[in-house]
Order: sequence, then C-alpha cells, then structure tokens
Amino acid sequence: MKTNPVIETLLNHRSIRKFKDQALTEDQIELLVKSAQAASTSSFTQSYSIIGVDDPEIKKQLRTIAYNSSYVEHNGFFFVFVADQYRNKKIGQKYNEDTSALDTTQRLIVALGDASFAAQNMAVAAESMGLGICYIGSIQNDINRTAEILQLPDDVYPIFGLAVGYPDQEPEKKPRLPFDVIYHKNHYNPEPSEDALKAYDEEVGKYYRTRTGGTREETWTGQIAQGLENPYRKALKPFLEKQHLGLR
Amino acid sequence: MKTNPVIETLLNHRSIRKFKDQALTEDQIELLVKSAQAASTSSFTQSYSIIGVDDPEIKKQLRTIAYNSSYVEHNGFFFVFVADQYRNKKIGQKYNEDTSALDTTQRLIVALGDASFAAQNMAVAAESMGLGICYIGSIQNDINRTAEILQLPDDVYPIFGLAVGYPDQEPEKKPRLPFDVIYHKNHYNPEPSEDALKAYDEEVGKYYRTRTGGTREETWTGQIAQGLENPYRKALKPFLEKQHLGLR
Repeated sequence: MKTNPVIETLLNHRSIRKFKDQALTEDQIELLVKSAQAASTSSFTQSYSIIGVDDPEIKKQLRTIAYNSSYVEHNGFFFVFVADQYRNKKIGQKYNEDTSALDTTQRLIVALGDASFAAQNMAVAAESMGLGICYIGSIQNDINRTAEILQLPDDVYPIFGLAVGYPDQEPEKKPRLPFDVIYHKNHYNPEPSEDALKAYDEEVGKYYRTRTGGTREETWTGQIAQGLENPYRKALKPFLEKQHLGLR
Repeated sequence: MKTNPVIETLLNHRSIRKFKDQALTEDQIELLVKSAQAASTSSFTQSYSIIGVDDPEIKKQLRTIAYNSSYVEHNGFFFVFVADQYRNKKIGQKYNEDTSALDTTQRLIVALGDASFAAQNMAVAAESMGLGICYIGSIQNDINRTAEILQLPDDVYPIFGLAVGYPDQEPEKKPRLPFDVIYHKNHYNPEPSEDALKAYDEEVGKYYRTRTGGTREETWTGQIAQGLENPYRKALKPFLEKQHLGLR
C-alpha cells in the first residue's frame, strides 16, 4: 500500500513512558496547540480547553493521582485536555440566554469528542516533531482532586493528560486488533472470527514476552477479561453531576 | 515557527461537504482503517469499532437522519465510528467473568475517547492522501434508527460518521478561537480576554461574509448563544441506558 510521511507518522506511533530531561520551547508548545485547534469541532462549538502545565509542583501533584507514574512529572511538557462548557455558558449568559441546553448528554458527548480530536492532532504533531507522547487517563483516578489542582470551574471535565517530550526509550510497536475484528461492512458483525482473535492473542503474547524478557505471559483477551473484574473511578458520575454535565 | 509536512496537513484542515463521484479503493479503505487503529487506546482496550458503509441504500437511510445532507449519501466512502463494549463483553463472558464493570461512566468515557482518537487519525490520513473529510455527528439525530440500520447490538453507541472522498469544493479555512482563549497556563483561567473574543467575532464575521457573498452576518459568540436555545437529541440518554452504557 502506498503511504506517505503523514501516514508513516501515524503508523509508527508508540506511547513513550520515559522522557529526556529537556523542556519543550514556547514555539513548540504554540505549534502543538495550534495543531490541536485545527481539528474538527462539532457545530463549531470548540467545547474544550487545553491547560499547559509546567509548574513542577502541579506536575508532582498530578503524578500522585496518576498511579505515581514518573513520566507525569518528568517530561518535556504536560497538557491537560478538558471538556469545557464553562466558556460557552458564560457567553450565553452575556446574551441573556437560558444556558440549560448545555447540561445535556448531547453536549457532553460533543465536548468529549472535540477535546479528543484536538488531543489526537496534538499527539500526531508531536510525533512528527520527533517528540513522544503518552495519554494519561489516570488523572481521573481522583477527579475531584484533579479539578481542585487545576482550579476547574463548574461545567469543565478533565478527561486526560498528554505527556510530551523527547523519548528516552524505544519501545516496540504494540500490535492492534486484526483488521476484520475492528472493521465491519455495512452492518455491525456481532461474531468476530475466533481464529483471528486467537492469532491476535498469540501476537500479543509474543509482544509481552519480548518486552519483558519472557517474564510476562499474557493474552489480549485474558487482559480484557481481567479488566472487567474491577469497576473503578466510581467518582466520575457524581463528578459529572456536580459539574452540571450531561444529566439529561 | 518550523513546521513539517505532517503539521502542514493538520493546519490545512477544512471540512468538505461536496465530493466528486469517485469511490475509494479497497487499498485506500484499508490504509485509512489501519491508520485509525494505530492511535492510542486507553488501557489497550480498543473499545471501538469502525463500520464501513458502501451500500447505497444504507447511505441514503443515514442521510435522512442527518439533516438530509447530500454528502452523507454522495461521497467516496462513509465510515461510522461506534463506542464498542460489546466485543469486550463477549470476551469477558467467554472467560466466565461478571462483565458489569463495562457498564460504567468510566468505560463509556474511555470508549468515546478510543473511537475519537481513531477517527481523528483517519481524518488526518485521508487529508494526507488528498481526500477530504466531514464528521457527521447528526447520525445521532435519530440514534435508535441509526442503531437499527447498522444492526448494532447492546453495548454499542454510534458517535459519528466520517464522510471521505475527493473534494469537489475548496472552502476557506474556518478561523479558530484565539490561542489565549483555548489555552490556559497551569490553572484554568475563567476570564478569557473580552478583547480577544471581540477580535475573534470580527474574524468569524468576515469569514461568513466572504463565504456567502455578504448575505450571512454572524459572530461566533452570537452563534454559541443561539445554539443554547434548543436542547436536542434528547433520546441520547435513554439510548445509553437501553444499551447498558455508562449508568453508574
């Protein structure tokens, strides 16, 4: 298949969890944010914000929430993407509008999408600049504390962080599900091929063995099944309620 | 600022709403899906699926849901991205797991993110191939009917379509919010600059005047305020409940 430098960048993605001690420049940060902003936004609402964190104290606090992962503190720069209805609510209030339409499931889904499109654009831009990235969904582990640290008002939801920096490791590419398992033709296919999943389990098993020098024995389906044992981040729903996001 | 071909592609984005009558090839479709799959996925759960629609009848049906937009029917190819807990639930059941952990807000947010990262990768890949794209959130306008058309089982949520094809128009780039309005330093700034928003309103006003030959007079803040008047897609929350997604 004919690729190009952009697609090569996309296909070459791997998450980076160890960064060199080199900060991003203001120019790099600006280019990353502008790349993020260029993504599509539902109905032009731009329902998200980006918080750039370089204060070492704040990074350290976020790290304690995010499984104490060192790369949340030690990186070139740390971004947080938030679903943001606060800005648009303030604008509506200026026009003397009833803003209760913001507090709907529809708007929450739109805001989560807007923030995610922007973040993925930033991830791609970063990798094209020779930087590495890692999404940090675990800032939601104590979402109330994260909101407090970042001084988030009502109507704002911190979805994930994005650690960016110069890679100090070269991890293998993590294999993805077989094409025919993720891709459906015209209708949803409720019966993915058993053989395809089995082959994928073997591929993932090999990936973990190589990565850990043979100490980690895992299959993808086994991992998925195990992950179902523990519902977590139970504070998310009450947090959404508290923030007036998506209740109806 | 120093850019590169990848960042040029990102910054050059504009949505395309008129496509030439030229279908994508199987090779192009495969490359787009593989590009999508290369995106990050939360905890490796790959909680999404992609439905590729080329059946003209299905496209036509989706068009009637999506404001009757012609480009939903007439394009090079049409993808639908769905948040997908069904596949992982089936896997859990095979391992005899209690799968109720899937039915949480945490998992819904993860699945929406996974699908959006993948979709944005596909959008970027498409544009790098000289194709144009438009997200179609309005397949949610009658979400029950969309689910029926695509034969979605429980635990699956259709978030948006992505129309892809050869552009048959050259729209202007839509201006984005000023940097300092979308970007916050270390803490959320609840008071975006009035001057910045005013300048942006003028820029957006000019964009609409140019685009419509002077017939459309709009500001961005005016548009936002007006959008608050009408809560819509009220079926989304009951649909999520029916699908066992994100209730707790």
